[in-house]
Amino acid sequence: MGMVGGGPGAFIGGVHRAASRLDGKIELVCGSFCTDPEANKTMADELFIPVEKCYDTYMEMFAKEATLPEGERMDFVAVTTPNSTHFPIAMAALEHGFHVLCEKPMTLSLDEALKLRAKVQETGLLFALMHNYSAYPMVRQMRKMIADGVLGDLRKIVATYDLGWLAAPNAGKQATWRVKSKMSGAAACVGDIGTHAEQLIEFTTGLKITELSADLATFVEGRELDDDATIMLRFDKGAKGVIELSEVACGEENQFKLRVYGSEGCLEWSQQEPENLLLKTNDTAMKTLRRGWAELDESVKGLLRLPAGHPEGFIEAFANIYTDFAAAIAAKMENRPYAGLFPNEETGVRGMNFIETVVASSKQNGAWLPLKQL
Amino acid sequence: MGMVGGGPGAFIGGVHRAASRLDGKIELVCGSFCTDPEANKTMADELFIPVEKCYDTYMEMFAKEATLPEGERMDFVAVTTPNSTHFPIAMAALEHGFHVLCEKPMTLSLDEALKLRAKVQETGLLFALMHNYSAYPMVRQMRKMIADGVLGDLRKIVATYDLGWLAAPNAGKQATWRVKSKMSGAAACVGDIGTHAEQLIEFTTGLKITELSADLATFVEGRELDDDATIMLRFDKGAKGVIELSEVACGEENQFKLRVYGSEGCLEWSQQEPENLLLKTNDTAMKTLRRGWAELDESVKGLLRLPAGHPEGFIEAFANIYTDFAAAIAAKMENRPYAGLFPNEETGVRGMNFIETVVASSKQNGAWLPLKQL
Amino acid sequence: MGMVGGGPGAFIGGVHRAASRLDGKIELVCGSFCTDPEANKTMADELFIPVEKCYDTYMEMFAKEATLPEGERMDFVAVTTPNSTHFPIAMAALEHGFHVLCEKPMTLSLDEALKLRAKVQETGLLFALMHNYSAYPMVRQMRKMIADGVLGDLRKIVATYDLGWLAAPNAGKQATWRVKSKMSGAAACVGDIGTHAEQLIEFTTGLKITELSADLATFVEGRELDDDATIMLRFDKGAKGVIELSEVACGEENQFKLRVYGSEGCLEWSQQEPENLLLKTNDTAMKTLRRGWAELDESVKGLLRLPAGHPEGFIEAFANIYTDFAAAIAAKMENRPYAGLFPNEETGVRGMNFIETVVASSKQNGAWLPLKQL
Amino acid sequence: MGMVGGGPGAFIGGVHRAASRLDGKIELVCGSFCTDPEANKTMADELFIPVEKCYDTYMEMFAKEATLPEGERMDFVAVTTPNSTHFPIAMAALEHGFHVLCEKPMTLSLDEALKLRAKVQETGLLFALMHNYSAYPMVRQMRKMIADGVLGDLRKIVATYDLGWLAAPNAGKQATWRVKSKMSGAAACVGDIGTHAEQLIEFTTGLKITELSADLATFVEGRELDDDATIMLRFDKGAKGVIELSEVACGEENQFKLRVYGSEGCLEWSQQEPENLLLKTNDTAMKTLRRGWAELDESVKGLLRLPAGHPEGFIEAFANIYTDFAAAIAAKMENRPYAGLFPNEETGVRGMNFIETVVASSKQNGAWLPLKQL
Repeated sequence: MGMVGGGPGAFIGGVHRAASRLDGKIELVCGSFCTDPEANKTMADELFIPVEKCYDTYMEMFAKEATLPEGERMDFVAVTTPNSTHFPIAMAALEHGFHVLCEKPMTLSLDEALKLRAKVQETGLLFALMHNYSAYPMVRQMRKMIADGVLGDLRKIVATYDLGWLAAPNAGKQATWRVKSKMSGAAACVGDIGTHAEQLIEFTTGLKITELSADLATFVEGRELDDDATIMLRFDKGAKGVIELSEVACGEENQFKLRVYGSEGCLEWSQQEPENLLLKTNDTAMKTLRRGWAELDESVKGLLRLPAGHPEGFIEAFANIYTDFAAAIAAKMENRPYAGLFPNEETGVRGMNFIETVVASSKQNGAWLPLKQL
Repeated sequence: MGMVGGGPGAFIGGVHRAASRLDGKIELVCGSFCTDPEANKTMADELFIPVEKCYDTYMEMFAKEATLPEGERMDFVAVTTPNSTHFPIAMAALEHGFHVLCEKPMTLSLDEALKLRAKVQETGLLFALMHNYSAYPMVRQMRKMIADGVLGDLRKIVATYDLGWLAAPNAGKQATWRVKSKMSGAAACVGDIGTHAEQLIEFTTGLKITELSADLATFVEGRELDDDATIMLRFDKGAKGVIELSEVACGEENQFKLRVYGSEGCLEWSQQEPENLLLKTNDTAMKTLRRGWAELDESVKGLLRLPAGHPEGFIEAFANIYTDFAAAIAAKMENRPYAGLFPNEETGVRGMNFIETVVASSKQNGAWLPLKQL
Repeated sequence: MGMVGGGPGAFIGGVHRAASRLDGKIELVCGSFCTDPEANKTMADELFIPVEKCYDTYMEMFAKEATLPEGERMDFVAVTTPNSTHFPIAMAALEHGFHVLCEKPMTLSLDEALKLRAKVQETGLLFALMHNYSAYPMVRQMRKMIADGVLGDLRKIVATYDLGWLAAPNAGKQATWRVKSKMSGAAACVGDIGTHAEQLIEFTTGLKITELSADLATFVEGRELDDDATIMLRFDKGAKGVIELSEVACGEENQFKLRVYGSEGCLEWSQQEPENLLLKTNDTAMKTLRRGWAELDESVKGLLRLPAGHPEGFIEAFANIYTDFAAAIAAKMENRPYAGLFPNEETGVRGMNFIETVVASSKQNGAWLPLKQL
Repeated sequence: MGMVGGGPGAFIGGVHRAASRLDGKIELVCGSFCTDPEANKTMADELFIPVEKCYDTYMEMFAKEATLPEGERMDFVAVTTPNSTHFPIAMAALEHGFHVLCEKPMTLSLDEALKLRAKVQETGLLFALMHNYSAYPMVRQMRKMIADGVLGDLRKIVATYDLGWLAAPNAGKQATWRVKSKMSGAAACVGDIGTHAEQLIEFTTGLKITELSADLATFVEGRELDDDATIMLRFDKGAKGVIELSEVACGEENQFKLRVYGSEGCLEWSQQEPENLLLKTNDTAMKTLRRGWAELDESVKGLLRLPAGHPEGFIEAFANIYTDFAAAIAAKMENRPYAGLFPNEETGVRGMNFIETVVASSKQNGAWLPLKQL
């Protein structure tokens, strides 16, 4: 693979690289890691790639790599830059014939997202969006059990996602671009973590949000965008829900919790203890389903690397997306069918649709607005 | 004390009696336990009170007891009947000169609540409303720390209160009256547990809800009233919040959780583990404050009956209200000043105000409505 | 009932009184609360008993009360004094014809315990020992499930009991008598908490400790007796186990945990979260059994006072012993059979046997010694 | 690096490979993965190494690789075979001039361990033993805080390590060799998990076990070696402790817990929730120290790959040993000083010393035996 972004001091690029290495099936062969050519070149040594494979610009990289024979060029590119550049980079990659794995949210606006989706469809190339929480084994188990009807008819979905990292006015470099519309888009907190909640809810339940009512807040003075939100939800098939979000939730690390209630029971999962999935019903004792559970779905067993009791975490979930995406690319190369579960361009459009509807509702003082049919 | 309600098969009446006994300072001397005179009389034996002190009606009880000399008559009455009869019973008790301790919610309607408050003020008698959660030691500690500014400026309050007991259509006798407006009032779930959330939020934070936007739901067909709700909140001083409520949350027992975030930190409490109060900030390790904590506020230490590590629970919190109320009555009898913390007629008016505003907002599809100034 | 001990400043006497009151079936009618006659009399007011029922000495109390007609005299006496006086007080009570409920450990020595047991048997009176942990609902459920074979053949039992209260040299008045042999007996930590572990293990598993190897420690200089211990166990039927004990375990409140492993599964219980009983097997998901569990044994359901999710704790378990003992007395008065589960004089002899064997083993540098057959 | 072991169907070899890849600094260049040459060759494809680098035997690998120039040959070898072959393989590797990273326990016997240590010292090569638990960030933090005196004088250490995987007679292929002395050594359970407990206790506390008293058990019929043990410990400087071990603990996954008590406080860590380190004292609220803690020691911060709240686990701890070892090798190549914290040949000797003393004590019915001075 090749990479755009992830230069010196960047955070998420390094996570992408570690995750891509974990299973020993993906090799980083080139990159355009940052816009400063000097800094960019320093990555060559650190990453054991030839210095001529550290391109000054992503355009140069796509152009050069496209001229190489298969087997020598990168097979896909990972886009790990700030939100505002996802769209042009991904478009250029597709135009040069490369599959794309992109950080979320997919673009700056819904309009860009629709264009990018059209380009993916037009080229027939593969596109993955890095919603790694959906690749935790117990999240996949949750999805399977809900699809199997274990919870009966779904009624209420409650997601809370709280971080404290933006609680203070000066929260560091990472924080600065997050709350500016030029780099982050129409929303900050909603784009950063709200889309995770929206994606995980729809992924695990199979429901679609039909309309929503939102109340955004900006608690730290001087910020252009939201740092907190509450969003009431209505789903198809009559279910209701709520997403509570905050990035000024002092003292919280990455506290993302999801509860899904149906007529027969509840499944509850928490990102900070990702190996536990709680199953509750009115008539039976609460069960703590874990990776070691004998009755785990076969598709979930395939995601495990270590025996139960040997804690797996964030990096393994991240790697599951990479492995799934790489397998899809391999299948495509060999003309084999392959049903990947990685989030894709549809997920990206959905996320941008969600963000813009939330922002619109909040501007209309919480009016219930439908999500667009796209 | 005397009691109205709490006859054979009733639940909360027995809790009131046990709580009132715990500290050995309050004696049950008479009662009108149920409307069936035969059943009523059977309570005499069980409760070791003379059969002639088991009155057929509460009116008879108030009339007779009022004629007895102090020391022989009851000093106050506990009202533990369904919601619809709180108002007439409490009014009659006050008119006969008795202090009243009443189950929540205070009345069927805000209008009744205002009349009852006026009557309390007119008579100068004491009135307590049984919001026992506000008397857990760690809830009191939470209130004290927030008042002391430990959290800085308050920003976001999140309360979730989930039970599974009404998940099935046929949830037993207790459930039947809860979802009928004639006995329960304008709301079921919101009246039953929503008022607990509203009261605990305002009690612990000192904030006032200024406006709200609500979405009620009735998931089980055939019910007249709500069995689920989400309520977005705005407070004075700029804080925001959300209350998520459900009585169809399959598998939950009495899962009431409260998180309060400020500019400096977070306090988190959960009713099912009432002895833990979590304090989180961005810069320090999470602290689990417990009853045994050396730095507990002196006012809280006064609420403890057992050393740390010897679990206290619901009944002790309930008893704290009784003990506080009894002390207030004793002080009044002796013309001593006394600053009780038990919920009172103002709490009751506030609760009914909350219920009616929630119902009105939901009827207007979640319009933001202000709470009345009363 | 009457009470010996529990005067001003005492701790456990107040717990006994609150527990005895909880269900409204037991009335405190007299007492000899402390050896200072003035202080003793002050209890009359506080406890609403006539001052002439506050006896200067327990001998006077037993003598006087024995002359009163049934219905006016106490039915049994609760002994809540330090260990060293349990024996003479209980013997005197039995000799005057009173049933006895006694704090643990039963006596200062095994020799005294054997004499007391003989006296109980000779008089035909009832004797209860206050091992209240054995009356927690989920402990009773654990016992029932093990008896029903849920765990298969028992293999390994692990109990850990840690408190921090004696970590500092000067740990207060309560601590002083605990570590002196004259008042506490042959062991401090082993007598105070070790007997709880021993009793709960044998109560829940139905196994008998056949031999043991102990290593006592005294970490705080100047103490006569042990403040820490580890005891390896062998049981009948081939099971093994270990009890780890400490009263210098800084930072622990009352951390008593018990795990029982069999060929088919494990049950785990922790005193500080007494409402949870964990059931683990190799093939199924861990179940958290709670008071609200539909399949709870009927005998356990009879111990519940509140619905699930309304936390019960220490005082309710304590009250379960009182209620069970009072029911046994009532049955005896009415010549009805009654199978109580309260710990009794056999439990007491067993506990003293355990203490003395532990001390002897430790003196012989951990030699494996059998418990005596008594 | 090169690898011996880790062929098709093996478990721990794959973990070694994934861990070695995580940071992108170590490349697997050759291996002798299993004794079946055909199966061995199949690894070439899976691991993207040339088929000629899949050697039929480790002797062949060492011989051939030793002839290659630096930069083309492996720099060290990872030994991931069953216990019985660690010694000959490691000896051969050292004799051919290769650094060695070896699975634990180091050898079959203490005698072998002493010989291996001598060979390491004689060659001046580096040797690492894979006790990965000692490389969890919060374990390192625990070690640092104890060294800094946060707990005061150490008093009591309690380790419990329970797994259920050997509860049934037929527990799979992995289980078979574990309980046979020819392949596993003098002890099974004690060698497999007891050495982890022993190593982690000495690593975190800096104390040395001076003598011990053990009681081994074999609960499943037909096994040659132990599947359960309890070991009482005495340390230098007066501390005491206990290790409770079981591999027939039905329902447990990999439940390794460690508590260290001193005169001033307690630190508690649990392998299944490795990101939490609990600090308890008598006077302050319990603190949950986590990876995100601002006051984490600088040396620990260097071990983190992800921000707090993004769960790290077993593989990262494993990788920390690899990274530390690789850095030590690089430093040695460049003649730079380097203070690694990876377990080494001394750790290995200590572990074998522990195993043999435990077995001897148990054979003498728990006699207290000193660990040898070696």
